Amino acid sequence: MNDIDIESLKGIANQLRIHSIAATTAAGSGHPTSCCSAADIVAALFFGHMRYDAKNPHYHNNDRFILSKGHAAPLLYAAWAETGLFPTEELLKLRRLDSDLEGHPTPRLSFVDVATGSLGQGLGVGVGMALCARLDKLDYRTYVLLGDGEIAEGAVWEAASLAGVNQLNNLIAIVDVNRLGQSQETAFGHHLNVYKRRFESFGWRTEEIDGHDLEEITEVLAAVGLGNQPLVILAKTLKGAGISFIQDKEGWHGKPLSKEEATRAIAELQPTAKSGIGHAVPAPNQLPAPKNEAPASYPATSYKIGDMVATREAFGSALLRIGEVDQRVVAMDGDTKNSTYSEKFYKKFPERFAECFIAEQNMVGVATGFSARGKVPFASTFACFFSRAYDQIRVGGISMANLKIVGSHVGVSIGEDGPSQMGLEDLAMMRAIAGSTVLYPSDAVAAEKLMEQMAMKKGICYLRTSRPKAAVIYNNDEQFPIGGAKVLRQSEGDKVTVVAAGVTLTEALKASDQLKDEGIRITVIDAYSVKPLAKDVIKSAAQATNNLVLVVEDHYAEGGLGDAVAGELSSDGVRVHKLAVTELPHSGKPEELLARYGIDAAAIVKKVKSLS
Amino acid sequence: MNDIDIESLKGIANQLRIHSIAATTAAGSGHPTSCCSAADIVAALFFGHMRYDAKNPHYHNNDRFILSKGHAAPLLYAAWAETGLFPTEELLKLRRLDSDLEGHPTPRLSFVDVATGSLGQGLGVGVGMALCARLDKLDYRTYVLLGDGEIAEGAVWEAASLAGVNQLNNLIAIVDVNRLGQSQETAFGHHLNVYKRRFESFGWRTEEIDGHDLEEITEVLAAVGLGNQPLVILAKTLKGAGISFIQDKEGWHGKPLSKEEATRAIAELQPTAKSGIGHAVPAPNQLPAPKNEAPASYPATSYKIGDMVATREAFGSALLRIGEVDQRVVAMDGDTKNSTYSEKFYKKFPERFAECFIAEQNMVGVATGFSARGKVPFASTFACFFSRAYDQIRVGGISMANLKIVGSHVGVSIGEDGPSQMGLEDLAMMRAIAGSTVLYPSDAVAAEKLMEQMAMKKGICYLRTSRPKAAVIYNNDEQFPIGGAKVLRQSEGDKVTVVAAGVTLTEALKASDQLKDEGIRITVIDAYSVKPLAKDVIKSAAQATNNLVLVVEDHYAEGGLGDAVAGELSSDGVRVHKLAVTELPHSGKPEELLARYGIDAAAIVKKVKSLS
Repeated sequence: MNDIDIESLKGIANQLRIHSIAATTAAGSGHPTSCCSAADIVAALFFGHMRYDAKNPHYHNNDRFILSKGHAAPLLYAAWAETGLFPTEELLKLRRLDSDLEGHPTPRLSFVDVATGSLGQGLGVGVGMALCARLDKLDYRTYVLLGDGEIAEGAVWEAASLAGVNQLNNLIAIVDVNRLGQSQETAFGHHLNVYKRRFESFGWRTEEIDGHDLEEITEVLAAVGLGNQPLVILAKTLKGAGISFIQDKEGWHGKPLSKEEATRAIAELQPTAKSGIGHAVPAPNQLPAPKNEAPASYPATSYKIGDMVATREAFGSALLRIGEVDQRVVAMDGDTKNSTYSEKFYKKFPERFAECFIAEQNMVGVATGFSARGKVPFASTFACFFSRAYDQIRVGGISMANLKIVGSHVGVSIGEDGPSQMGLEDLAMMRAIAGSTVLYPSDAVAAEKLMEQMAMKKGICYLRTSRPKAAVIYNNDEQFPIGGAKVLRQSEGDKVTVVAAGVTLTEALKASDQLKDEGIRITVIDAYSVKPLAKDVIKSAAQATNNLVLVVEDHYAEGGLGDAVAGELSSDGVRVHKLAVTELPHSGKPEELLARYGIDAAAIVKKVKSLS
Repeated sequence: MNDIDIESLKGIANQLRIHSIAATTAAGSGHPTSCCSAADIVAALFFGHMRYDAKNPHYHNNDRFILSKGHAAPLLYAAWAETGLFPTEELLKLRRLDSDLEGHPTPRLSFVDVATGSLGQGLGVGVGMALCARLDKLDYRTYVLLGDGEIAEGAVWEAASLAGVNQLNNLIAIVDVNRLGQSQETAFGHHLNVYKRRFESFGWRTEEIDGHDLEEITEVLAAVGLGNQPLVILAKTLKGAGISFIQDKEGWHGKPLSKEEATRAIAELQPTAKSGIGHAVPAPNQLPAPKNEAPASYPATSYKIGDMVATREAFGSALLRIGEVDQRVVAMDGDTKNSTYSEKFYKKFPERFAECFIAEQNMVGVATGFSARGKVPFASTFACFFSRAYDQIRVGGISMANLKIVGSHVGVSIGEDGPSQMGLEDLAMMRAIAGSTVLYPSDAVAAEKLMEQMAMKKGICYLRTSRPKAAVIYNNDEQFPIGGAKVLRQSEGDKVTVVAAGVTLTEALKASDQLKDEGIRITVIDAYSVKPLAKDVIKSAAQATNNLVLVVEDHYAEGGLGDAVAGELSSDGVRVHKLAVTELPHSGKPEELLARYGIDAAAIVKKVKSLS
């Protein structure tokens, strides 16, 4: 490490404060006091301690920095501007539509790996990155800067626990304990000892420092990486530090200074401020880059028509099959790997698998971390339990993360375990993620092929798998492009187009057979791509059935496949009827529940007959 | 407390084991080994320690018991059957459609306060109940039985922290540390010391015991309530305890015994088993019941047409106004009370307000706990942050909890803070909750009146409030029944029916004025009730506009108001067009963003002109 010039760091810290104040005052909103409390820490990290190529923020062995307290974005922007990455004048465009220096950081900026701003999420991402460094045999370290308020989030403790269990000594958390939350003091104020005991009990090495004393800061940073524990640096700070008339005062969260106040504050800071431009930073070690390249193709599958295979099991087989030839693939599960079948991959590639235990928020955070490092992470658990991680998935959308989420045990067709284990809202929640892809295979071949598509497509992809076994209906060479659909039954004079997926596709095919015996023919479509929806395929089929469509799904009536079809096709005059679960279900046998909630073949037959 | 006969408790514990084994074998599924590990603890709690009227599970001062490890449901059912509440023969109907003894407990059963089965949620509910006991000046205690696997959930630590901060010595957690998770050993096996240090660092008193030694169990239970800390009892147990050929073995999670195995296991247990029927249990103290009655009416509001008031502020005013006369009303927030305006209530009624800090999962858990005790809890934070608690809300739906959820700062209209702070998926997620009501007021009067409806209506109700100020458009005597809508503009020859709410209603009214100048007239509907939707009102208006509807919303295009309208009306031949946010938004000024994402008056004008 370079010799660290404490006086320079003090000057740079004040320069970062000045930028943060000026930018937020120019924007008319923002969190200058949350920047000021962390300015000394960030100066020390960026201008003396972290090893990185400032001209190339994506360099594979750069130390990583995650601003978990994303509202201190102006400080992060100021730090990178002061490294010379972009002109400092840009900072005054903060929060403007014509600048990517947004209110909270997003990866629209080259130097941001993941979006932050929903508190308590940075550490889980950091765990994923630290695990990835280990997998890739790289020695970069991951630094996560947290606020003290966000320590109340349980996701922080999920991450802390897994970091402790995995002895991630390449992960460093720094907590900016400025005492003041948004609406009042935090529960523990400046009692760093509370945090110290908590982190220690979760397996961390701890250091307590004065977060405005650059000698203390640089001293503890010099000892980073020692031992076999993750390290947390608990920094006692003042909110608004460096602004004499504001620091440590309540009522200053998320509030820019007035022009007059800003002028006064900057006048206080200016005499000791110093630019960081030209200040040398330690270089990262030159180590081989990981091979994160997609293979040309994946091995073929060998199912036989009529084989009974649950799509959840096909997912497990696909994960292994794809993972064999695609080194980018990693996987994680929340202690359900024997139910989701991700254990097939785990058994073969334990080093590429992260058991996240029963902590779904952190599992998605870990996956996001791997994704930010070029991997293709598949995270699996019961579909309903991804509702636990919905905020992490939402922020994954903002991060444009390459997340692959696989939810099993969907709908009432799981049977006896009852409603708490049934994924009945997963399509609604996954559809409403920016840029998401939502897939719902009905047989093993479709599940396997969609897994290939997921591995190849950038962005958040969700695969909905089912618990019951289902007959293989497709040949191994069938293709399932994202955005497509399969017309399985169609004939002249069909009365209605039935759109289904998963267990309801099986029921729709049964209904088709029964109706045929009564002289009623229907079109049946496998809508395996819920988002994007095969609008044209369904529309074209609907036009041949007098614009009459019936969507049947093992999901609540709101936000699922039925709403997707209605939402996309009703503007064209297509009349969309729905059969879906419309009340809180009960425990029972799968077939009993499909009947009780009106989504089995009998219900389809009855509904089709009633339509005109 | 009664003298406790240890030998009887041992016998009852084995009787509970026998029931659990027999019931799961009869059902062909379930978690008998997870029951057996906790059988001694449950026997001690239900047949010697807890103070309750077993004939009246709802008695207001009964000790409460929450089975956070909900998969041990057969054990809970067996315990209540053995108190004499219902015939033990019923236990063999486990998991059947014709019995409410479901796979995981739900409040369809009189003795279950809240649904469990999604792990890690019980303790937060327990915190709410314990806080409620204090508020109601009752001395019941709340016991929460957790599994060791679920301790990995962050929600547990959110709850643990708040319990410690509030010194809830009327809350007792018991952790059944049986070492084995679903797919492998937990991270900490039988190392109780890890859990002990964690709970201590979160402010709890801890006791470590052998969970199969009834003398130890009863001894620590006898010291419950001492001191000013919550108590956690860490019980070392064996999964499947009491079944010699299964206990402490891997591979037995969620697996019933075969008939032969069950016969053998029961033969081992039978000689020492003893029924609990007729066994006296300690009675609760007779204390006055809390007055949880709704008032006849609420005070009137006094807004003036044209006043500029944000609906979030109207929520705060309504909470205070309603709370003044409705003692059932309590509130909680996640350190955003100065933004959501719940601080209006907090300032007047601090004792009825729970500051939950930045821990939304636990906030919803706490609210669920209050709801289970007869209160009407209003939980508020930014709408997007309720995505953090989606699983808790989902389970609240299964609990049929009387939760009132208020999400502010919705859509791109929040402006500069950027996408991480924008609620753009909240309608989708809240619509997909079983039995939910979803409300979206456009002015202060509507917000206030809908708050009254929410307080009066049982079940999960969501209120979507907005950040920007909006003009008051309704008189104070306007009524807003749930399931209704307001037709604000309508005339002969209207070209299209525009359906909107919140900020887009304002834009739709502007568009209406602009179009009128060009000779185009439109119907404008305020769809303040998103679920249930005013289907008839919209349909009737649509019929007068050639079945043409345009829905405009500050929400993603998936699962929101547009999908709701299309999903309900397209089957009637109504053609529903949508304007909504269709890409990941950016920071910027609210009006810039409404324009950029195509949901402002100009976009409506353009779209209306394009329709035919």
